Amino acid sequence: MMELMKAIKLDYANNSPQIRWENVPYPHPTAEGQVLIRVKAAGVNRPDILQRDRMYTPPADASPILGLEVAGVVEQVFGESRWRAGDEVCALTHGGGYAEYVWVDERHCLPKPAGWSFAEAASLPETYFTVWFNVFMQGKLGNSQKETLLVHAGASGIGVAAIQMAKALGHRVVITARKEEQLKLCQDIGADAAILLDELWVKKVQELSGSIHVILDMLGETTVSGNIKVLGKGGRLVWIAFLTGAKVTVPIPQIMEKQISLTGSFLRPQSFNVKAGIAEGLRAQIWPKIASGVIKPIVEKVFPIQEVEKAHAWLEKGGHVGKIVLTV
Amino acid sequence: MMELMKAIKLDYANNSPQIRWENVPYPHPTAEGQVLIRVKAAGVNRPDILQRDRMYTPPADASPILGLEVAGVVEQVFGESRWRAGDEVCALTHGGGYAEYVWVDERHCLPKPAGWSFAEAASLPETYFTVWFNVFMQGKLGNSQKETLLVHAGASGIGVAAIQMAKALGHRVVITARKEEQLKLCQDIGADAAILLDELWVKKVQELSGSIHVILDMLGETTVSGNIKVLGKGGRLVWIAFLTGAKVTVPIPQIMEKQISLTGSFLRPQSFNVKAGIAEGLRAQIWPKIASGVIKPIVEKVFPIQEVEKAHAWLEKGGHVGKIVLTV
Repeated sequence: MMELMKAIKLDYANNSPQIRWENVPYPHPTAEGQVLIRVKAAGVNRPDILQRDRMYTPPADASPILGLEVAGVVEQVFGESRWRAGDEVCALTHGGGYAEYVWVDERHCLPKPAGWSFAEAASLPETYFTVWFNVFMQGKLGNSQKETLLVHAGASGIGVAAIQMAKALGHRVVITARKEEQLKLCQDIGADAAILLDELWVKKVQELSGSIHVILDMLGETTVSGNIKVLGKGGRLVWIAFLTGAKVTVPIPQIMEKQISLTGSFLRPQSFNVKAGIAEGLRAQIWPKIASGVIKPIVEKVFPIQEVEKAHAWLEKGGHVGKIVLTV
Repeated sequence: MMELMKAIKLDYANNSPQIRWENVPYPHPTAEGQVLIRVKAAGVNRPDILQRDRMYTPPADASPILGLEVAGVVEQVFGESRWRAGDEVCALTHGGGYAEYVWVDERHCLPKPAGWSFAEAASLPETYFTVWFNVFMQGKLGNSQKETLLVHAGASGIGVAAIQMAKALGHRVVITARKEEQLKLCQDIGADAAILLDELWVKKVQELSGSIHVILDMLGETTVSGNIKVLGKGGRLVWIAFLTGAKVTVPIPQIMEKQISLTGSFLRPQSFNVKAGIAEGLRAQIWPKIASGVIKPIVEKVFPIQEVEKAHAWLEKGGHVGKIVLTV
């Protein structure tokens, strides 16, 4: 076993973070039931950038290395596992994905879809776990019937995943986005209606889709009052971020009148067991839709991991469509 | 059959409402499955006062006569029914309780508890339906385990019902109130902790009860930020009124961190079927606790219905404990 591997290292010596692909200690498992993945590709996510800028501190037991999701090949298994060396998987990591090797909970791995590249498979875990947990488990989309989902920022990695998953399960999906080409892409991948997020969006959602059952929102302040207007009786608003403002004003009478629920969650602090439960849901409900070709990969841009700074800049400039992935 | 009965009539001729007990047309059923109740007592509720002051318009198909709950004797049955003439019941009405007779959906009647007076039984339906729907159905208190309920305005009619029901089902209950004697009463009827609603209430709730699973709130603005602080992971805040302010500011990050749900409802606009479902829950879970003596009647004051103005003034002055009832 080698004692060093390459990984992305952060160096704050000169104030602005320096990011380099260089030698770090080879990782070790922290508990039985973990598998070592030889990383072929790692997904890029907004929290990576917050962590890079020291605006987010990862959990104490997490790897300090960036990277929340990978695709690769199982290299080694520690304890009982459904996986064997050589299996091709994608996985949610507990940090540490921007590296040649990473240990992950074996329950947080899913099979790499047949016919998908490693880069394509690496685009799945973070957004698919997030959407399954928030839209289907917290927001209970369609637990008993076909429903309508509204997704803001429909062309983001999360947005694209939400459109694909909700459509694959037979629901109606409305999205908003800020650019015409994003609207077009969302419709191409299945959104039933795509609406420009201008001052008329509430009216347009109401005209095109009647009342909404579940909203997946990452914007916060700018959309909250419209969200409450478009939700129907028993509707659920689920926050997963608050990019435009974290403190929002809500009207109790409308919440009571329509029996709306306002809720939300962060994926990362969830327990290993909760994440394992999310993976079970994906395995049962969503992976068959990937296998049958109903869900197709959508990767906007692939960078070699040595060019991670370019990849982050690409994410930060906004206006992208789908995921950005690093290859190792 | 007589053609007139006595009921409370509202007259707005001289601007401020005149309330009189006088002749009105005898009521007729509007659908099969209704029973005519000879009213012996009618509960007084805050919405009665809002409707009296023309600040609340009842549903178009409801009786224009005040009165949301009664106890009395079944006089007549229209269509299929579990009830027979002579049965003693209490019932949620669709308006019209301040009268000698009222037709109600037979599914919205429950047996008058043995040993309870009609006045005591008339104190039950509105608050018990409201608490069952909001705390147990919407707020899901203790669906799978014993939990802790926080009730603001614990000495109000709703508050007293919430304490009694949650304690009867084995949960922990914390209440707040504004007066020492109200705290005392709430503890006497079973509240595990009773806290003065001053600027220290949040700290005191945290010290005495750790984190809260469900909050029943009728205050709105003054309690919202403290409510979010004391809720634990997965906690649910249920609004049933907004006496101190209807527009509230909430912090998305805390909602996400703790996976809190903010929700609420009005009882009155619920469908007849939903109300029938509430009654079924009460019949199965709560009525046995009343029969076994675990839940005892708490009526603060009884007025003859001719003195309804005094009863309303008593409710409006605040500081009361439990329900106010009119006898016919």
